[in-house]
Amino acid sequence: MFSSDYLRDISDRAISSLNYSTETERLYDPVKYTLSQGGKRIRPVLCLMACNLFSDKIDEAIMPAAGIEVFHNFTLVHDDIIDKAEIRRNVPTVQSKLGINQAILSGDVMAFIASECISQAPERVLVKTLKLFNKTARQVCEGQQLDIDFENKGIVSGEEYQRMIELKTAVLIAAALKMGAIIGNAPENDQNLLYEFGRCLGLAFQIQDDLLDTYGETKVFGKKTGGDIIANKKTWLLVKALEQSDGEQLSKLRNLVSMKEFNPEEKVKAVVEIYDSLNIRLQAENLSYEFINKAFESLEAVKIKESRKTDIKQMTTSLIGRER
Amino acid sequence: MFSSDYLRDISDRAISSLNYSTETERLYDPVKYTLSQGGKRIRPVLCLMACNLFSDKIDEAIMPAAGIEVFHNFTLVHDDIIDKAEIRRNVPTVQSKLGINQAILSGDVMAFIASECISQAPERVLVKTLKLFNKTARQVCEGQQLDIDFENKGIVSGEEYQRMIELKTAVLIAAALKMGAIIGNAPENDQNLLYEFGRCLGLAFQIQDDLLDTYGETKVFGKKTGGDIIANKKTWLLVKALEQSDGEQLSKLRNLVSMKEFNPEEKVKAVVEIYDSLNIRLQAENLSYEFINKAFESLEAVKIKESRKTDIKQMTTSLIGRER
Repeated sequence: MFSSDYLRDISDRAISSLNYSTETERLYDPVKYTLSQGGKRIRPVLCLMACNLFSDKIDEAIMPAAGIEVFHNFTLVHDDIIDKAEIRRNVPTVQSKLGINQAILSGDVMAFIASECISQAPERVLVKTLKLFNKTARQVCEGQQLDIDFENKGIVSGEEYQRMIELKTAVLIAAALKMGAIIGNAPENDQNLLYEFGRCLGLAFQIQDDLLDTYGETKVFGKKTGGDIIANKKTWLLVKALEQSDGEQLSKLRNLVSMKEFNPEEKVKAVVEIYDSLNIRLQAENLSYEFINKAFESLEAVKIKESRKTDIKQMTTSLIGRER
Repeated sequence: MFSSDYLRDISDRAISSLNYSTETERLYDPVKYTLSQGGKRIRPVLCLMACNLFSDKIDEAIMPAAGIEVFHNFTLVHDDIIDKAEIRRNVPTVQSKLGINQAILSGDVMAFIASECISQAPERVLVKTLKLFNKTARQVCEGQQLDIDFENKGIVSGEEYQRMIELKTAVLIAAALKMGAIIGNAPENDQNLLYEFGRCLGLAFQIQDDLLDTYGETKVFGKKTGGDIIANKKTWLLVKALEQSDGEQLSKLRNLVSMKEFNPEEKVKAVVEIYDSLNIRLQAENLSYEFINKAFESLEAVKIKESRKTDIKQMTTSLIGRER
């Protein structure tokens, strides 16, 4: 099966089949709006692929996989309120289009649509699937909390930053893969290997995202580089640069990230100069490769025929080094 | 068992036993703050009582009952953002204490704590319990949507208002009772009778709340009467008065509810005069009694020994005509 086939299963057979009460269109229109923007649907596709490693009945995983995707979109709708984000996936966010209150409420209902989808896991694995989902959902909230806390905190260590992205981003990818494995009747050890595969992949993806925002080419990636620097966002690059600089350089960097009025291009240039003098880009690339290697080690250790792993390897490889 | 015993089960054995990660106290402190305010915990107590009608193993229903309570508190935390409410249960709301973003995020995590609790229903009824919960949770969001829509809508019919309070308030009480019955292994027909019992009770409670806000005695109910009128809230009383008045009286009432600057006491007096001339209070009392009678008819029809119904009848009777 090609990655696009899995994607079609998720989009056409699950996401499009969701039921919405026609009595309250204002509640559900933003849900449809958000879910129809699509994207690569990485998480549910990985869920189906993980299931397919062990089982040919991937139909059993389709609704739970869709649940992961709805949950992910729920977090985006609420995060966009918190971040005051105007644009996502090149279209206005729900909060900017319809206001905070509507984004809260339409987001809320998505949380229960997600639960509804997850609850359609096969009964033999329902308890385990629900436990994994609810624990992960809580962790994603915890990660978002750490992210908020960091914005008000002067010093954040590289370790703390990594824990934040682990909770906010990596555990959901990990859980998507583990859920597929559970539904595919994988042995417990293989379930855990796939979780670790996803966790490392998620960490690598986030560090790559941070890299792309600063070093990506605008033409290739469609969005202007330097956005994180302009917004004073705490990224892996910034956290590490603050950790590794001292004296005059540290005060200069601190000054730059606390500036309220500035020329964006000059600011990006000045910060990147500091990053470059500290070799931050190379460090980030190395760490990202480290996580990717760890991820593939876990995948290698999964005890199934190599030929079954082709799809998931291809998909993962195509994601590495690309914007998601 | 006394109502207070059920309450102790919920508070001490379920709500207090919930686990919170110590890594993100800022996320969980508002959750503990909200849940520790207690209140009568009507919904989970009714859930346990409904279970106890059919089964002596009410332990099986304790965590799901707590889930209903956590869900209810989740809706309060988010509704308080939407309503810009400063005070609830005599203490500052999460949004007024810690801001909108914190209230969104701590509310979100409560939704998944609720799901976690519900997922602890016995496996033999897990699918049914989850379906009921997720459907109900979605309906509560739908009810809140109608409530928001009504604020921007000139004319709302009595029928529309009733549907709104049915979704926003009544279905959760109904679901709490039905969930208890499901876990207690009640026959399907009795499950549905208890749902109807709760639905009618919920409708009666809301109409009584509307009555109390305007006609309750400040001394007895602790909160100043007339709050709904001052806030231009669409209540059953106002909706009905707008429906039944015409000519000069209708324009006067419309004027009153669209006033931006006014003397609160005078405004309350003028609106109540219109209500009184239309006999709105009596109509509301009658409708509330009608729902209470319908509720008790459903309870009577439940096929179990009368003696088992004593607790639930006592509890319900004590709630009628009282603030919750």
